[in-house]
Amino acid sequence: MSDTPETVNLADKLALFSDHWNPRIVGHYNGNEVRVSKLKGEFIWHSHADTDELFLVLKGRLTIEFRDGVSTIGAGEFLVVPKGVEHRPVAPEEVELLIMDREGEPNTGSEPVSALTREKLDEL
Amino acid sequence: MSDTPETVNLADKLALFSDHWNPRIVGHYNGNEVRVSKLKGEFIWHSHADTDELFLVLKGRLTIEFRDGVSTIGAGEFLVVPKGVEHRPVAPEEVELLIMDREGEPNTGSEPVSALTREKLDEL
Repeated sequence: MSDTPETVNLADKLALFSDHWNPRIVGHYNGNEVRVSKLKGEFIWHSHADTDELFLVLKGRLTIEFRDGVSTIGAGEFLVVPKGVEHRPVAPEEVELLIMDREGEPNTGSEPVSALTREKLDEL
Repeated sequence: MSDTPETVNLADKLALFSDHWNPRIVGHYNGNEVRVSKLKGEFIWHSHADTDELFLVLKGRLTIEFRDGVSTIGAGEFLVVPKGVEHRPVAPEEVELLIMDREGEPNTGSEPVSALTREKLDEL
């Protein structure tokens, strides 16, 4: 068996599921997880105490609300939410994206567990 | 002034330069740099002793040679080269991509400095 690193096709991974707000792990980089997810509707306000969070939109347009403003991210654009910064993702229409978080970080971060919390993510 | 994180458009950043093998920094994530670069031709064999390296191709097709095999990465695909693994990127046609490395890592890693080495990268 070869140890040659494998190429990951993001669209192929995204085609494997259809639910929203349930990220899947598709890679590992320097103690961080590369995840893909589909979003639709409103998430909850939360923050990540110990990790920045990178959002790279592949399809659609994502709005992220902050306490002092709003940013939108379209396909081919990314935004990094610094650790500790409260934010709320909102996807009026379905969004497909790549997300990076520290290994093991729940999607709702340091907030109380909600119905949307995913603490143990599947790896595709 | 607002502290709201800014959205980065990858195509807009790539439009700001045309040289090859000279990555620019366009973001920061958990002690790593988000870089964009244009590649064409053959790079040198090298490895990064202390950082994984993530290649996410935006345009074109990148070949990465390893000592025990070859991988190709097309648009919408990524590959992570684990730290310490020798590799040589080859771009028969121009490739545009996003790269992640630990902050401050030279593009030729732990290898002797070559004509292609960029130790101090510009931030766009």
